[in-house]
Amino acid sequence: MPDSLAPELPLRPDLVGEQPYGAPQLDVPHLLNVNENPYAPPAEVIEDIATSVAAAAAGLNRYPDRDFRDLRAELAAYLERESGASGLTADHLWAANGSNEVMLHLLQAFGGPGRAVMSFGPTYSMYPEYARDSHTHWVEGSRRPDYSLDPDATIAHIAQVRPAVVLLASPNNPTGTALPLADVRAIADACATTGPDGAATILVVDEAYAEFRRKGTPSALSVLADYPHMAVARTMSKAFALAGARVGYLAAAPRLVDCLRIVRLPYHLSAVTQAVARAALRHTDALQAQVTQLRAERDACVTWLRDQGFTVADTDANFVLFGPFEDRHAVWQGLLDRGVLIRETGPKQYLRVSIGTVDQMAAFRGALKEVTGR
Amino acid sequence: MPDSLAPELPLRPDLVGEQPYGAPQLDVPHLLNVNENPYAPPAEVIEDIATSVAAAAAGLNRYPDRDFRDLRAELAAYLERESGASGLTADHLWAANGSNEVMLHLLQAFGGPGRAVMSFGPTYSMYPEYARDSHTHWVEGSRRPDYSLDPDATIAHIAQVRPAVVLLASPNNPTGTALPLADVRAIADACATTGPDGAATILVVDEAYAEFRRKGTPSALSVLADYPHMAVARTMSKAFALAGARVGYLAAAPRLVDCLRIVRLPYHLSAVTQAVARAALRHTDALQAQVTQLRAERDACVTWLRDQGFTVADTDANFVLFGPFEDRHAVWQGLLDRGVLIRETGPKQYLRVSIGTVDQMAAFRGALKEVTGR
Repeated sequence: MPDSLAPELPLRPDLVGEQPYGAPQLDVPHLLNVNENPYAPPAEVIEDIATSVAAAAAGLNRYPDRDFRDLRAELAAYLERESGASGLTADHLWAANGSNEVMLHLLQAFGGPGRAVMSFGPTYSMYPEYARDSHTHWVEGSRRPDYSLDPDATIAHIAQVRPAVVLLASPNNPTGTALPLADVRAIADACATTGPDGAATILVVDEAYAEFRRKGTPSALSVLADYPHMAVARTMSKAFALAGARVGYLAAAPRLVDCLRIVRLPYHLSAVTQAVARAALRHTDALQAQVTQLRAERDACVTWLRDQGFTVADTDANFVLFGPFEDRHAVWQGLLDRGVLIRETGPKQYLRVSIGTVDQMAAFRGALKEVTGR
Repeated sequence: MPDSLAPELPLRPDLVGEQPYGAPQLDVPHLLNVNENPYAPPAEVIEDIATSVAAAAAGLNRYPDRDFRDLRAELAAYLERESGASGLTADHLWAANGSNEVMLHLLQAFGGPGRAVMSFGPTYSMYPEYARDSHTHWVEGSRRPDYSLDPDATIAHIAQVRPAVVLLASPNNPTGTALPLADVRAIADACATTGPDGAATILVVDEAYAEFRRKGTPSALSVLADYPHMAVARTMSKAFALAGARVGYLAAAPRLVDCLRIVRLPYHLSAVTQAVARAALRHTDALQAQVTQLRAERDACVTWLRDQGFTVADTDANFVLFGPFEDRHAVWQGLLDRGVLIRETGPKQYLRVSIGTVDQMAAFRGALKEVTGR
């Protein structure tokens, strides 16, 4: 081909001008921007991971167990213990490289051209990307001013749109708002008949941050058995301090999981990922102790921010949405200048801070006082 | 919801009745069915993997490097050394969880509704699945009786279909047929203007098995610099004996790679996967020695099969297509009964055997003689 020819690449028209998704990855002392767990895995977990991966490495020339039933059974047992739900087995579980791949599987199986996926904003900013990547029409409904869902309005909007999939984050990101169980039930009841062609709508309750919920906040897992069209998504990124290992999962009726098995790429979950996840699950108690610490730090942060006069959303997650600010970007930049990276996301006058260690939260409070003069 | 209600799940109509893809995973002494490398990673590689993963584990609470530039630079250096190509940098490389995820990224960026992806059969049986999962129209052209491509006919068919993407496996799976460099050039020249709306067609040369090619068979990497619309896909599954680790990658012009970055899920490649891949790349020479052994065993297998009177396709891969059999399933079953699992795939009267260890190939030969009576 002559050098003068520079053929145009056939990038899909709807992707032209799009940027790769993701918060800035900056090298800053206090990373409080992407809801990571600030505690590195304890030494005993690191050691178990290394031993487990060495064992798996001896067989890496072979493809991994495509159905990873051991991991699925262990995730089921963990969820039963964590939520009090019963009856979960390997057949009820599914996992992938991060909960975002779990979401992609859901939209590949149930969404696609001519179908819609709904959520209710402000909510997780990746949801429209999953829709775009799977060619599913994206519809965003709204929440009340306090970021809770109005169940009647939500159900009416769903009945009108007739989406194949509804995504409800609980606790919601970036607001921290959990969904009351009665509302989950009411919406799930309605979803039984609101899907395309008289089928159900798949109701996905995205519980990525569920382990951080306050005492008395239930998990949707406790009603999952009643709803063959519901899925509860979780992740090991946060409570298990494994964001770097990319393990998301969900629980649902086996018939729903079987639909996901059709669209998953074969061998999508590596033998190494399976080994790492299983190792971390063996140390649930040690990792849960860090979660308990973070919940206390989170509640203290909410109280402190309110004492300073900020409006703070009730939060069951490991992050706090607070404001309002006339110029939130200036505040964000001021914090960054002081070595504290938080996130500009959600409602325009608000900022989100992830809960870090005791020292990191002190640094955040100090920097915020300097920047806002409160 | 009343128990009597069993709502229908809104599985996409084109997926109803579909089965999850994958060869049977059976527990048999001689696994010669999915083109795995029969040699486990050497002890030094396992040790390096364990050490590297332990180091990565200490930071697993953080998300991985989203752009994995270290791994991309090291893959670029490896490809230059392996193929003799020059000018490859991190910007030219992309990687994902298996080459099948690389392929999905290509079709998410360039394919989709209203667009077509082409290949030429018999070829890799996953290609139509990638098309289905990305809602891209699948068009399969044909090969000559000896499984080579007729470049003129291929170009004419491409010009008629105007696909967004063409996938050409070289060596082709399941036939082992490599594509001559002159044909790659001719097809790439044509593809500069055959895409949708006057754009180029993305030409993907799938070199999953390239390291097994015979002396004198070139890689398409040697002409990549001339074609901004070409991508050469590789995998660490075979030559690096890392099927269980799921690392596929490609080389292409940076502008093409940037298109893939838009559609990848954020943090798709875990910190552990990055660590494992980089560890294996540090032991390229040791792993390459196993490849050399497998190439010799492959050539011996072809010779032996021809000596027995079978028709055997020329092969540059770590597998051999042979036949014909009036009832190939009976032969496949007879081998399985003798502890040798091979694959029923490709042309209806043929079978494919993956190259195993010296002992495994002896077991295969013995079993085949018993079953066929030759």
